[in-house]
Amino acid sequence: MPKIRILTESDLRHVITLDIAAIDCIENAFRALATQDVRMPPILRLDIDDYNGEVDVKTAYVPGVDSFAIKISPGFFDNPKMGLPSVNGLMNLFSAKTGLLEAVMLDNGYLTDIRTAAAGGVAARHLARENAKHATIFGTGIQARLQLTALTLVRPVTSATIWGRDSAKAEKTARDLSHELNIPVSATNDGKAACAHADIIVTTTPARSPVLQASWVQPGTHVTAMGSDAEHKNEIDPALIGQVGLYVCDSTAQCRILGELHHAIDAGLIDAASSQTELGQVIAGSATGRSDARQITLCDLTGTGVQDTAIATLARQRCDASGTGTEIVS
Amino acid sequence: MPKIRILTESDLRHVITLDIAAIDCIENAFRALATQDVRMPPILRLDIDDYNGEVDVKTAYVPGVDSFAIKISPGFFDNPKMGLPSVNGLMNLFSAKTGLLEAVMLDNGYLTDIRTAAAGGVAARHLARENAKHATIFGTGIQARLQLTALTLVRPVTSATIWGRDSAKAEKTARDLSHELNIPVSATNDGKAACAHADIIVTTTPARSPVLQASWVQPGTHVTAMGSDAEHKNEIDPALIGQVGLYVCDSTAQCRILGELHHAIDAGLIDAASSQTELGQVIAGSATGRSDARQITLCDLTGTGVQDTAIATLARQRCDASGTGTEIVS
Repeated sequence: MPKIRILTESDLRHVITLDIAAIDCIENAFRALATQDVRMPPILRLDIDDYNGEVDVKTAYVPGVDSFAIKISPGFFDNPKMGLPSVNGLMNLFSAKTGLLEAVMLDNGYLTDIRTAAAGGVAARHLARENAKHATIFGTGIQARLQLTALTLVRPVTSATIWGRDSAKAEKTARDLSHELNIPVSATNDGKAACAHADIIVTTTPARSPVLQASWVQPGTHVTAMGSDAEHKNEIDPALIGQVGLYVCDSTAQCRILGELHHAIDAGLIDAASSQTELGQVIAGSATGRSDARQITLCDLTGTGVQDTAIATLARQRCDASGTGTEIVS
Repeated sequence: MPKIRILTESDLRHVITLDIAAIDCIENAFRALATQDVRMPPILRLDIDDYNGEVDVKTAYVPGVDSFAIKISPGFFDNPKMGLPSVNGLMNLFSAKTGLLEAVMLDNGYLTDIRTAAAGGVAARHLARENAKHATIFGTGIQARLQLTALTLVRPVTSATIWGRDSAKAEKTARDLSHELNIPVSATNDGKAACAHADIIVTTTPARSPVLQASWVQPGTHVTAMGSDAEHKNEIDPALIGQVGLYVCDSTAQCRILGELHHAIDAGLIDAASSQTELGQVIAGSATGRSDARQITLCDLTGTGVQDTAIATLARQRCDASGTGTEIVS
């Protein structure tokens, strides 16, 4: 009778946090994607239009990693009207050798938040200028907060700007982050001004039309676009994808359908069949990263199952080591 | 903070069994598939060749049903060498209105066994002759046992034959079933002889080449083929699909890829683009079932997410009513 570890969000918050170890974990996941025979099937997507809901299921098997996660992410966008969070979900972790269930991680999306922000850290570590000091974040939600935190872990960020349509929200996010990270963080609703002095820009919005215009981005900037994970989402002016010195994505197969790349293909700026540089290839050294200090680089992140397998395996190892969680026999 | 019910296999065995209520539940699921705007995305499939493993993820949203299941079924076929079962898995049940996780059903495949056998009962109820008395089961595993049990619930079955390549296994299964169902059950490894007096044949094997030849099937027989759920599996001589008076499937989209239909298409006997009668249409009365007592009918079952949503919702309702399981807040 196999033992299954049941882990609550609180358990997982105790063992996993957004730190260098989490960023290294996700970096290794991307390296594996480029160098090993990773199996990452297309995302399973269930739409529940009756309740403005959608569910994504992601997974990946990484050779050499003992476990694989199956991550279920429901997003129900009328939930806030009922006082409930839009995004929820859990990860199920299985032995890669036997398929037996090892852990049920009732994280309500927490591990996804961490692995998503960690990917932003990995992108900046490999694509932003070493001396990047000023970060601009588009968006005011949890990923705005975590992405800026991740940047401070990999680059000497000493100031930041938060852009938001809703000034009150932008100001609150800026105030909180300034307090938390101990750097000056300002707020604005002027996108062009927000980009004028940015060394790194991260877009974290659920926008359906571009919030970042190509002409705003200065030479030498690194841009990470992480908001789009569905066909209809679009944060970046497609012209920017056509113009940048280096375009990098987490998964070409996914970004052709779900990422900013999709809209550049639709605009006729990128050939749909063209192969794109993947972040894992840059990490592994099989593709070239930033060429010089004036190049504009852009990283298109849609979120991959290999990140889920990596963060859930790390969480399981730490919970095993510390005896965290409740064991159930079934 | 939502409450999540954790249910073990033992909990689920207490509330769900293979009975008329389970068959009715699965019949309703197939009816919904034919009459409502059910959302049933393609199966997510992860292959882990390094360990002879495969994982299927199935789901479906049924309008009017409060919950939807996401069912994860790992099959690791080297497990028996380690003393572990090949097939495992769990079902996660979510609110269809909010996407919040309601229950984690650690059933190790038990609910899948029940809903799969119940589908065999539904198929026989709608396609076998009313007076069907003798059932022949190909295979000696858990589905061989459950499929015969399901048949006894819907037709006046008074005797049965178990066919198995391994005579010892076939004899044991026959002996057990005879004792359990209180009817004579014989065993054989002669497929042709096994079919000679069958009113209903159910194939339950993981065969990769046909175990049931077209010429063996007598007029008036109903055949349910439920073993194939993957491209490479094939239990039925494709010629039989071309010859039967009525071919019915659980899902045309799935059977074109995973079912016996797939091999009949490959053999050039069925047009790949042709539309097929689905079991739900027969149940709903929008397609014609058996026309006469001499017609051969065949039902091709690959297993659908709508069955998982139906059985898991029933299990949740019964566990709620009886207070079964452990509640966790996360």
